[in-house]
Amino acid sequence: MSGAFLFYGRDQKMITVSILGASGYAGAELVRLLIGRPDISIVALGAKSSAGQRFDSLYPSMAGRVDHVLQTLEEASKHPVDCTFVALPSGEGQKVVPQLLAHARRVIDLGGDFRLKDTALYEKYYKHTHHAEEVLQEAVYGLPELNKTAIAGARLIANPGCYPTSAILALLPAIHHGIIESKGIAIASMSGISGAGRTSSVDFSFSELNDNIRAYKIGTHQHTPEIESVLQSEMGKSVTVSFVPHLVPLTRGIYTTIHARLMKQMNTAEVLVLYREYYQTAPFVRLREQIPQIANVAYTNYCDLTVNADDRTEQLVITSTLDNLIKGAAGQAIQNMNIMFGLAETTGL
Amino acid sequence: MSGAFLFYGRDQKMITVSILGASGYAGAELVRLLIGRPDISIVALGAKSSAGQRFDSLYPSMAGRVDHVLQTLEEASKHPVDCTFVALPSGEGQKVVPQLLAHARRVIDLGGDFRLKDTALYEKYYKHTHHAEEVLQEAVYGLPELNKTAIAGARLIANPGCYPTSAILALLPAIHHGIIESKGIAIASMSGISGAGRTSSVDFSFSELNDNIRAYKIGTHQHTPEIESVLQSEMGKSVTVSFVPHLVPLTRGIYTTIHARLMKQMNTAEVLVLYREYYQTAPFVRLREQIPQIANVAYTNYCDLTVNADDRTEQLVITSTLDNLIKGAAGQAIQNMNIMFGLAETTGL
Amino acid sequence: MSGAFLFYGRDQKMITVSILGASGYAGAELVRLLIGRPDISIVALGAKSSAGQRFDSLYPSMAGRVDHVLQTLEEASKHPVDCTFVALPSGEGQKVVPQLLAHARRVIDLGGDFRLKDTALYEKYYKHTHHAEEVLQEAVYGLPELNKTAIAGARLIANPGCYPTSAILALLPAIHHGIIESKGIAIASMSGISGAGRTSSVDFSFSELNDNIRAYKIGTHQHTPEIESVLQSEMGKSVTVSFVPHLVPLTRGIYTTIHARLMKQMNTAEVLVLYREYYQTAPFVRLREQIPQIANVAYTNYCDLTVNADDRTEQLVITSTLDNLIKGAAGQAIQNMNIMFGLAETTGL
Amino acid sequence: MSGAFLFYGRDQKMITVSILGASGYAGAELVRLLIGRPDISIVALGAKSSAGQRFDSLYPSMAGRVDHVLQTLEEASKHPVDCTFVALPSGEGQKVVPQLLAHARRVIDLGGDFRLKDTALYEKYYKHTHHAEEVLQEAVYGLPELNKTAIAGARLIANPGCYPTSAILALLPAIHHGIIESKGIAIASMSGISGAGRTSSVDFSFSELNDNIRAYKIGTHQHTPEIESVLQSEMGKSVTVSFVPHLVPLTRGIYTTIHARLMKQMNTAEVLVLYREYYQTAPFVRLREQIPQIANVAYTNYCDLTVNADDRTEQLVITSTLDNLIKGAAGQAIQNMNIMFGLAETTGL
Repeated sequence: MSGAFLFYGRDQKMITVSILGASGYAGAELVRLLIGRPDISIVALGAKSSAGQRFDSLYPSMAGRVDHVLQTLEEASKHPVDCTFVALPSGEGQKVVPQLLAHARRVIDLGGDFRLKDTALYEKYYKHTHHAEEVLQEAVYGLPELNKTAIAGARLIANPGCYPTSAILALLPAIHHGIIESKGIAIASMSGISGAGRTSSVDFSFSELNDNIRAYKIGTHQHTPEIESVLQSEMGKSVTVSFVPHLVPLTRGIYTTIHARLMKQMNTAEVLVLYREYYQTAPFVRLREQIPQIANVAYTNYCDLTVNADDRTEQLVITSTLDNLIKGAAGQAIQNMNIMFGLAETTGL
Repeated sequence: MSGAFLFYGRDQKMITVSILGASGYAGAELVRLLIGRPDISIVALGAKSSAGQRFDSLYPSMAGRVDHVLQTLEEASKHPVDCTFVALPSGEGQKVVPQLLAHARRVIDLGGDFRLKDTALYEKYYKHTHHAEEVLQEAVYGLPELNKTAIAGARLIANPGCYPTSAILALLPAIHHGIIESKGIAIASMSGISGAGRTSSVDFSFSELNDNIRAYKIGTHQHTPEIESVLQSEMGKSVTVSFVPHLVPLTRGIYTTIHARLMKQMNTAEVLVLYREYYQTAPFVRLREQIPQIANVAYTNYCDLTVNADDRTEQLVITSTLDNLIKGAAGQAIQNMNIMFGLAETTGL
Repeated sequence: MSGAFLFYGRDQKMITVSILGASGYAGAELVRLLIGRPDISIVALGAKSSAGQRFDSLYPSMAGRVDHVLQTLEEASKHPVDCTFVALPSGEGQKVVPQLLAHARRVIDLGGDFRLKDTALYEKYYKHTHHAEEVLQEAVYGLPELNKTAIAGARLIANPGCYPTSAILALLPAIHHGIIESKGIAIASMSGISGAGRTSSVDFSFSELNDNIRAYKIGTHQHTPEIESVLQSEMGKSVTVSFVPHLVPLTRGIYTTIHARLMKQMNTAEVLVLYREYYQTAPFVRLREQIPQIANVAYTNYCDLTVNADDRTEQLVITSTLDNLIKGAAGQAIQNMNIMFGLAETTGL
Repeated sequence: MSGAFLFYGRDQKMITVSILGASGYAGAELVRLLIGRPDISIVALGAKSSAGQRFDSLYPSMAGRVDHVLQTLEEASKHPVDCTFVALPSGEGQKVVPQLLAHARRVIDLGGDFRLKDTALYEKYYKHTHHAEEVLQEAVYGLPELNKTAIAGARLIANPGCYPTSAILALLPAIHHGIIESKGIAIASMSGISGAGRTSSVDFSFSELNDNIRAYKIGTHQHTPEIESVLQSEMGKSVTVSFVPHLVPLTRGIYTTIHARLMKQMNTAEVLVLYREYYQTAPFVRLREQIPQIANVAYTNYCDLTVNADDRTEQLVITSTLDNLIKGAAGQAIQNMNIMFGLAETTGL
């Protein structure tokens, strides 16, 4: 949507990239956000079942702007590039990333395969085994608001999940300052349907989802351990969250409402001070006094947050919102790429 | 949606009713649900600003089925009837109910004026004073799953709010059995936009709400003390809830997700037994193993519930859903009327 | 939605029915509309791929109201019943209807197989051959506003398509009175997504259809010859229509806007007289002065119409709207059944 | 959406602009599209009722990107700028434009006040008199695909209406080549609700428009004479169109389906050749073989078109789609500005 217009001097070297899984929504969003940049050259787009088709026959909105033909994953993997984005379903990423690291200087994986260091946990929640443990251990969790320095030096980025980005950004300052109880944090998230990907199930058909809301995977969603393990490292002690995702009838956006028990009496203004300070150098986190709305972050890389401390119930309520395809996927991946290649974090976002 | 077809013997006396506030969504829903019944005669429809217009010019869907002209509230109040439904904004009900009780044998108020016995609490949350305390004390809270006997004998019913119906039905069995902590129960509710009534604010325009979610009145919503006071009576000790309502882009339906701390280890099956037993004679509460969906209750008087007990986080998660205009307003009012007049509770619903 | 409550005397015999294709949207709508009726007994529900499942596991909204298990089409076909509804995809109906007529006294087919008498035309538009020509010729086109007498005596009803119902009802009076040119009538129809059935294609997923409109099958839709052949019989000369259907982001409802060239100068009031007279005994056609809206007919069996004659352009503009699952499918099928069994046309609708 | 990144040399002079009516949707879209451009400086934002508020309090999505405070229209008009965009309701533009031309070198009016040269016609359709006839006559109709040269030299641009842009672009090649009959062209357009502006009427509330479609102003919409007069100049003879706009439940986008009678037998391929040739130098008109979809043009300045010539009915069917806030308003205004200031037509779009 935006387009910070930047001056690129004549010595600016092009960054070459490839995208595996360009036929899915996150992959296509990467294409949309990168195609206009003068400092990026998209060398190859790879896809599984759509290989051989033009990208713009799948995404006609891009007709006249992208003329790439989708290659097989194998072909697309072979191009030597500065950076490869992997936007494949969880379980597929771990199959290609180890070899990719031979051809691409940097790899950013948007799936779930490199986010949990504990493979037992991975296997419990993702329901398949992990075959790339050696590279798993070097992966850096790509949440720039937490890990900027590590990201800058990383070879492999595990780009955070959409729900975890919204929940972790909402909780980090409170966890960092130890103002909330670490057990039983209640997270209710509502997601637009694009979060389910480009899918052909009856359950995701318009007629089943319009005018409808439903929770799903209560207590068993694979983003639960991701949220917990990131917060745990930050807090230095065990954190448990009860995470309930919901599908709501809109296309883009996640809205997360969190209840956590305050450890000591604090009012909203005091909590806000901690949050503002924590995020003072984060260009994409906006702390609002007005309650956030999905419409304010849709098609942007922003995450909007607000906090409410309630004496009466001793609860801290935090609401956060972001665009699941941008700050929750492709935008954050590009933010990571910008950091890895020494560009301004906000370039092209 | 349906229409249980009933046999009405020749000695069945007609119940005469009037509806004040028939131009709003809840009032119009009362008309829609009552107009086809052979045992009900709608004697008068009253409205504030639309008086003088035909009802079906406001609700053209009812053309050919309703030929009433809207009267002023004053005129409509004067008809002697068996039962008057008051579907006026909170603050307006208390102005008319005392006099109404002179003309109508029974009054069912769908607004918020007679739900809180404590007028100080009422004034804190509703932001105006209460001028009808004498009748307030005799009002019965019209949640049939809780108060059936009292409803049968009542002269004045305070019909529950839409959010409270979904939250209280979700919590009653757990509160009754004392299996959850009574402090800081976390309630996240998502409501369709019809809950805001027939309104002309920019904030409720299609362009502002489509593709959008926003929380509002965090910790300050007037339904908070309603939920707390009902649960408190049941539990016999102080209950506090942290209630966060959200607007979501659909017209009808409320979805409520609750987190409460379990007092002792219980698994889902054990909790379900308590819930099933509690609601075994409640025709409109359905306990599901599948997670509830708004689409399953829209246009019906059902409230669908499911429970999840999670050892790991020691949380009980309860999801409930209902149609805010039916079980959350007009349908529940009719259920109350049925009980008050000795009819089967499900008649016409 | 409604429920005309009716008195059924003690000598009223139950009508027994079966429904083939009960797992689809039109079939399920038949179940919903028939289940509450005291004069109807649903003997069997048949389905193709869902046989063996409970109906309410597919449609949880009906839990507590329907306890049928879906049978195979073969099993369900064998029950001797008064009336069988066939709600199968076009091409499937012709396979079962001939044998069904042996077990069911009456058959109402909601698919497209018995609407076109000309099998060559059928094969051109439906892309498969017709194997049931013998019964095809006895089928009566089930548009009650046109064919009531024939319907009453029919053994096999070809229930009209959703688009054709909206277009034909909009055009019949004008065609009958010969006030419009019969060549090149321009029909733009917009349909809710439930018209596509319960389908698992990416093209019908929420993410692809929300915030979107697209025309499809321009000039090639199979409802084109259905509209033309019905109008032709009425007009007594060749009629051609240019029919453009569109998908719009809502679940239920069809909105049809028609342009036809006026044969002579007439104003709107004059045309309206002809329309009102034509439909004076049709309980489900409402002629409005206000422009129709889908919301006014959703969940009802009404078709709302308005006409505009424009001197300046010499065009007659007609807009019509109906609920594609009710007046465009299940409701009309029940209206036909009512007529066939000597009941009031509006019973249960 | 994108952001063609451009090199701006050091001698590039900034273009200074002001926007009157920045609180409405079209005005805010101008801000969004212009704010990131390095070659544009937004000097002042003016608004009627919101003057004194920060722009980002009305449009929180822009927080952190725009820090302007809205001025009164009077204040905002006084800044000497290169170009003023007027995004006021029709009737308001004519009050300010004459004086504005004293302060701004160029004025682009997005309202309807300068589109019809015939003030009698203006007064008939817009229902108020025209008080700025002297400047009206010099206004250039800002459809770049038709009037590029005149736009480049204009002082005052009448930016086309959203519906007219979609209809005129769909018809121009056919009209130019005289292949369709000029009388009684049937235009059915469906518009997203943002077309109604930022409005507080019940009729535009979410609850009234969700799940709904309605036509409005059949034959009387003020865009009718705009379409006719533009086509008439091109065709050199009288053109009449029967224009029927519809509201559909989505926020952005217009979809237009047109039926016109072919003057001679032509097939689709032959018509397509004429259209492709006509638009070969138009960067924002895409001629598709696939049927256009709103989703493909939303958030872009593209207009996608397709044609279907049907021998059987002798009709040419044309479908076109665009984003009403971009190609139908702010994007086209910027395209005009680019042309007026000698920039590449596509800059920043």
